[in-house]
Amino acid sequence: MRHDGRKVDQLRKVDIVNDFVIHPEGSVLISVGNTKVICNASIEDRVPPFMRGEGKGWITAEYSMLPRATEQRTIRESSKGKISGRTMEIQRLIGRALRAVVDLKALGERTIWIDCDVIQADGGTRTASITGAFVAMTVALGKLLNEGKIKALPITDFLAAVSVGVDAEHGEILDLNYLEDSSAQVDMNVIMTSKGSLVEIQGTGEEATFSRSQLNSMLDLAEQGIQTLIEYQKEALGDLSLIVTDNLTKQVELK
Amino acid sequence: MRHDGRKVDQLRKVDIVNDFVIHPEGSVLISVGNTKVICNASIEDRVPPFMRGEGKGWITAEYSMLPRATEQRTIRESSKGKISGRTMEIQRLIGRALRAVVDLKALGERTIWIDCDVIQADGGTRTASITGAFVAMTVALGKLLNEGKIKALPITDFLAAVSVGVDAEHGEILDLNYLEDSSAQVDMNVIMTSKGSLVEIQGTGEEATFSRSQLNSMLDLAEQGIQTLIEYQKEALGDLSLIVTDNLTKQVELK
Amino acid sequence: MRHDGRKVDQLRKVDIVNDFVIHPEGSVLISVGNTKVICNASIEDRVPPFMRGEGKGWITAEYSMLPRATEQRTIRESSKGKISGRTMEIQRLIGRALRAVVDLKALGERTIWIDCDVIQADGGTRTASITGAFVAMTVALGKLLNEGKIKALPITDFLAAVSVGVDAEHGEILDLNYLEDSSAQVDMNVIMTSKGSLVEIQGTGEEATFSRSQLNSMLDLAEQGIQTLIEYQKEALGDLSLIVTDNLTKQVELK
Amino acid sequence: MRHDGRKVDQLRKVDIVNDFVIHPEGSVLISVGNTKVICNASIEDRVPPFMRGEGKGWITAEYSMLPRATEQRTIRESSKGKISGRTMEIQRLIGRALRAVVDLKALGERTIWIDCDVIQADGGTRTASITGAFVAMTVALGKLLNEGKIKALPITDFLAAVSVGVDAEHGEILDLNYLEDSSAQVDMNVIMTSKGSLVEIQGTGEEATFSRSQLNSMLDLAEQGIQTLIEYQKEALGDLSLIVTDNLTKQVELK
Amino acid sequence: MRHDGRKVDQLRKVDIVNDFVIHPEGSVLISVGNTKVICNASIEDRVPPFMRGEGKGWITAEYSMLPRATEQRTIRESSKGKISGRTMEIQRLIGRALRAVVDLKALGERTIWIDCDVIQADGGTRTASITGAFVAMTVALGKLLNEGKIKALPITDFLAAVSVGVDAEHGEILDLNYLEDSSAQVDMNVIMTSKGSLVEIQGTGEEATFSRSQLNSMLDLAEQGIQTLIEYQKEALGDLSLIVTDNLTKQVELK
Amino acid sequence: MRHDGRKVDQLRKVDIVNDFVIHPEGSVLISVGNTKVICNASIEDRVPPFMRGEGKGWITAEYSMLPRATEQRTIRESSKGKISGRTMEIQRLIGRALRAVVDLKALGERTIWIDCDVIQADGGTRTASITGAFVAMTVALGKLLNEGKIKALPITDFLAAVSVGVDAEHGEILDLNYLEDSSAQVDMNVIMTSKGSLVEIQGTGEEATFSRSQLNSMLDLAEQGIQTLIEYQKEALGDLSLIVTDNLTKQVELK
Repeated sequence: MRHDGRKVDQLRKVDIVNDFVIHPEGSVLISVGNTKVICNASIEDRVPPFMRGEGKGWITAEYSMLPRATEQRTIRESSKGKISGRTMEIQRLIGRALRAVVDLKALGERTIWIDCDVIQADGGTRTASITGAFVAMTVALGKLLNEGKIKALPITDFLAAVSVGVDAEHGEILDLNYLEDSSAQVDMNVIMTSKGSLVEIQGTGEEATFSRSQLNSMLDLAEQGIQTLIEYQKEALGDLSLIVTDNLTKQVELK
Repeated sequence: MRHDGRKVDQLRKVDIVNDFVIHPEGSVLISVGNTKVICNASIEDRVPPFMRGEGKGWITAEYSMLPRATEQRTIRESSKGKISGRTMEIQRLIGRALRAVVDLKALGERTIWIDCDVIQADGGTRTASITGAFVAMTVALGKLLNEGKIKALPITDFLAAVSVGVDAEHGEILDLNYLEDSSAQVDMNVIMTSKGSLVEIQGTGEEATFSRSQLNSMLDLAEQGIQTLIEYQKEALGDLSLIVTDNLTKQVELK
Repeated sequence: MRHDGRKVDQLRKVDIVNDFVIHPEGSVLISVGNTKVICNASIEDRVPPFMRGEGKGWITAEYSMLPRATEQRTIRESSKGKISGRTMEIQRLIGRALRAVVDLKALGERTIWIDCDVIQADGGTRTASITGAFVAMTVALGKLLNEGKIKALPITDFLAAVSVGVDAEHGEILDLNYLEDSSAQVDMNVIMTSKGSLVEIQGTGEEATFSRSQLNSMLDLAEQGIQTLIEYQKEALGDLSLIVTDNLTKQVELK
Repeated sequence: MRHDGRKVDQLRKVDIVNDFVIHPEGSVLISVGNTKVICNASIEDRVPPFMRGEGKGWITAEYSMLPRATEQRTIRESSKGKISGRTMEIQRLIGRALRAVVDLKALGERTIWIDCDVIQADGGTRTASITGAFVAMTVALGKLLNEGKIKALPITDFLAAVSVGVDAEHGEILDLNYLEDSSAQVDMNVIMTSKGSLVEIQGTGEEATFSRSQLNSMLDLAEQGIQTLIEYQKEALGDLSLIVTDNLTKQVELK
Repeated sequence: MRHDGRKVDQLRKVDIVNDFVIHPEGSVLISVGNTKVICNASIEDRVPPFMRGEGKGWITAEYSMLPRATEQRTIRESSKGKISGRTMEIQRLIGRALRAVVDLKALGERTIWIDCDVIQADGGTRTASITGAFVAMTVALGKLLNEGKIKALPITDFLAAVSVGVDAEHGEILDLNYLEDSSAQVDMNVIMTSKGSLVEIQGTGEEATFSRSQLNSMLDLAEQGIQTLIEYQKEALGDLSLIVTDNLTKQVELK
Repeated sequence: MRHDGRKVDQLRKVDIVNDFVIHPEGSVLISVGNTKVICNASIEDRVPPFMRGEGKGWITAEYSMLPRATEQRTIRESSKGKISGRTMEIQRLIGRALRAVVDLKALGERTIWIDCDVIQADGGTRTASITGAFVAMTVALGKLLNEGKIKALPITDFLAAVSVGVDAEHGEILDLNYLEDSSAQVDMNVIMTSKGSLVEIQGTGEEATFSRSQLNSMLDLAEQGIQTLIEYQKEALGDLSLIVTDNLTKQVELK
């Protein structure tokens, strides 16, 4: 039993609130334990300059934390006048992950802006951001579909993310909270689709190393956690999730 | 009747949620109509360098909007690498306003950081920030009091803020939403205490001017609106509001 | 009697030198007591991108102080690489104020750049800037008129600004110098037209509050001071002031 | 056969020049095919403020590319005034990787600065940087040892890095050059020690996904490539490599 | 005869106003033709961190132009958020030049800040800045002497600067105005002492070259112009100039 | 004899390696003693916005030092987020110098980017940069010529640069290394063509002054050193140098 009573392969309590704020095309508040992130998706009818004329869309993400999302107040990046390396890494990761399950050609020359703003942090903010952002993005694309601006929902599969790690006491564990993350020997973020395909894997020994056997155990935990997270996504998406499932079936049939 | 059915002297629906996120010493979600602001208060046990050794405390505020708090996505100030003039004005205003009702000597060499993050905007974000921040700050100071770090709650009066304006159709109106604000001829923010003392008044003709008689009508509306907002603050503060009321009574008696 | 021998309702010595430097379309050195500001007006034949195609003009202001305008040397904002909140507030205030008395449609798609550079500071630099900038702007527009680029002088009224305040010793006072400003309980800047219409009012209790009755006394002082300042402006403008007066008369007749 | 004649499991030509420039404590020019990186290690006798007094050392890395390291000239980050997200990610990665094989306690309160400057780029610059930096760092620490400032070489194992990927034509391949990297479906960087322990693994589907079986094949390729790279490191280090080997043996015996 | 009626070896009209603004320790307005620069000298009782404890003083300069010092409005460097290469070059030049005639040991651990703000530009702003700054600095040091903070005026010689150039029509010319500067083939700034010693010489062919014989003719012109400028400095300095002359005599006698 | 055994008029060992890295149109590694600079020339088929439509080309230079080019590690300018005054001066100097020997009209609307990256510094980095950049630029223009994009090599003369100075012990000396530069009384950089025409001369007394006779001796040394440097350039350029020599002959004949 972990310090918060969870089993090694147990996710924290997950909650996904749809239509959280009124202005964005897609807006989600995701809670994973005490980690809470507002994920907003905006659709802009053009792409960045370097992509113009290619007939393809783009997905870009920004990530930020409120100063008191954390135990100690952190200085705003706008006050410092620059974005930290950590923030940049996370922003790039979120955008890259979502692009893996969107047919950018079918999206057309549009940009999807994903804004992930952490209002309360307790570990796993980047994976919660990805899991929530997938829902917000799908809702936003659903609106495009309803408005007849695209012919089909250009999403090829569900996508969710979770952290796994290695802990001195419990070995491989799923979904680390801040306390666990701080003392873990290995920390790994895994992003997968509902078919179990890997989209991104980032594993780091914290002044430590890990074996391939530990890597495999962590991937097993992640795979199971992600399947559960995708169930929560489906619930939040309602009927829209059926279209994604339908897209998936068609791909399998094509093969 | 205004476009949203309100009378000229009517506030929008107000809601103040206390203890909104877990880490800050004081945390409030204030809603004024569709305007929603997270107001967090943090207490730091030291003052900025320019104030050290004076035996006084300090209150400083930061204000920001999520990119999709607005109808159109606005670029993050952290991405632009600098803070806009509008943001700076608002931050300075919030800090100055709160300092007017806190006994900085009694606070001791501490800094209260106020973070106002607008998650949904529909006009009046700066006044909602001040009204919400007063509650968050009072809660944070209440914790200092409970922990025995200060001997008395160093708050001398309630403080709230509201916008008033002049409209071509309805004349002077209270609590403008975004649509009204965009077309108003005059826009004024008023910050007052429960005793009806003015803390700050900022009135601006938008490519227009206003008379002293219009100024007086706007101040009448503001005064009434602020009294109502203070009732909401009292409700959110519960027993803590009694201590502030008590502080007020003592001051009157002293005089 | 105030510390410099003035009465409570007395302005400092005012001097407005026209054609101060040779390059700008309008160039004024205004002195209000020991406060000295160079106010230059430049006319550019285009508007900022966000206004193109609207057939209207724009007025924008920049404000700066020489490092040794002040008693202690202040660091240049160009060296710090960013503009302070105070500077931004003042710049926005100057631009907004001047726009209130200019018919932007009649100006056409042109930008008036106002540069206020304080070479010596002793309180009231922002109000002196506005009072001087009005003259520089009018001279610049007068040149446009002489060159036949506009058909009429697009200025609807005179405009001047003054500070008022509340002092522990003298109560409400007019035109505070630096020493008075530093110890004032209330500090208010008032911008008015010759007709007595308010353009902007910004009153702030400095860790203090003020009553509506004090507000009214301060406004009375400001109104009288501004009428005097407008007399100085008329003198500096010479014949150009007659055109502004003429514009005013026509507006009254129209009503 | 790959487009440059290599087999799928074949590294490019590797060359490690020791003592490349004269000033740094450790200085290496590493070439991996056409990728050339100057890796310099500097030792500073203090640690960053956040680590002072902990009796531990620190390793930090900076990474940059000359503007014409690339086919098209890239703008200098110093000219843009900010460091890109890509650069920050790489810098953080290099530092983290090296810290995994250094006993920071034994290093004492010192900082090792690693500067990786790419003078010619053809894919794999971050992995070449890590492989070269390990040598430069070891040389620098060897000097500390010779000067008697530390009692033992605080390096626990050899460390090298390589990229692997999945290619539409050849499947899993080792050590991608720029052309291969641009068209790869999956791109993964692997950092390992001589014992085959994983220090970091970062695998990304480029608008694609990958299976766990593909992951395993890539890891097999990486492991073999890294063993070869470590042989080059040993050769460049000469006698110093014997001390690292000795450190390794002792650890095994302790267990 | 040059386009403004001057002979090739003739300076423009020079005017040096002492005590121009009230706050700085030394304050000068220098006019050289239509070029006008406010030169203020401030004395700070400490040196920059890199010089502490050496028992020596430091002189540092900042240079700026008002936006409408020029024919076309130039953007403020504070608005751009960075200082141009041209400004940096000039600032470094002014500081370096003045340091050549000050005994920094005798100055003690103090910094002299020189602020040169061009209010009207017509060529030769950097040389006018140096010539004016020498006077402002001497006045400021004279105050230190009067206050007994230093025992002797630590100035070893007079110092002035002038531009010379080569013109297609007139050959070598002295003291170029903006029009001449724009079309000159060679542009050279010369800084000299009253003894005729060179402190700095910067000659540049503008997409052209120059011979050593032209260099010598230009130096002859400069030497004569600088002697005249020093006479203006002496006049502005009054009795203080006698102390500098006295310092000079003593040095000669020592030799 | 100087501390490194050289005579006062003796250059350090010079070496110019052509085709140093593969991507740039021209790429040179120049060594002057222990000073080593990579000089890359890139050709872009457009000019900066301020020059468009003039039918002329442009040459711009950037200069940087690797952090450990120096004895002590220097902070990267990209990390500081701004470029130092020293770097700006050098960049401007390199670009200006090269423009003096290129026929910008004949170049057409193209920009030549010169990147000088110092990998090892021991004094004279700016002069070595210019001498090496001339070769890299000529090689790059030679490629344009070979590709038939220009009809003739638009270079009017050879160009090289050297430092000279005045030393307490040896008087005037040629080509100062870092140690000599640090203690020199006068430091001068001279840029000349093969015809002995001056392109730029920058002489500075370091808290000292110099006479015109010293200036002349330094120029004599520089002239001789530059002729030798041009011999090295010719050798590195091979046949291309004949075209430059031919250009020179034609110009003489024309006159």
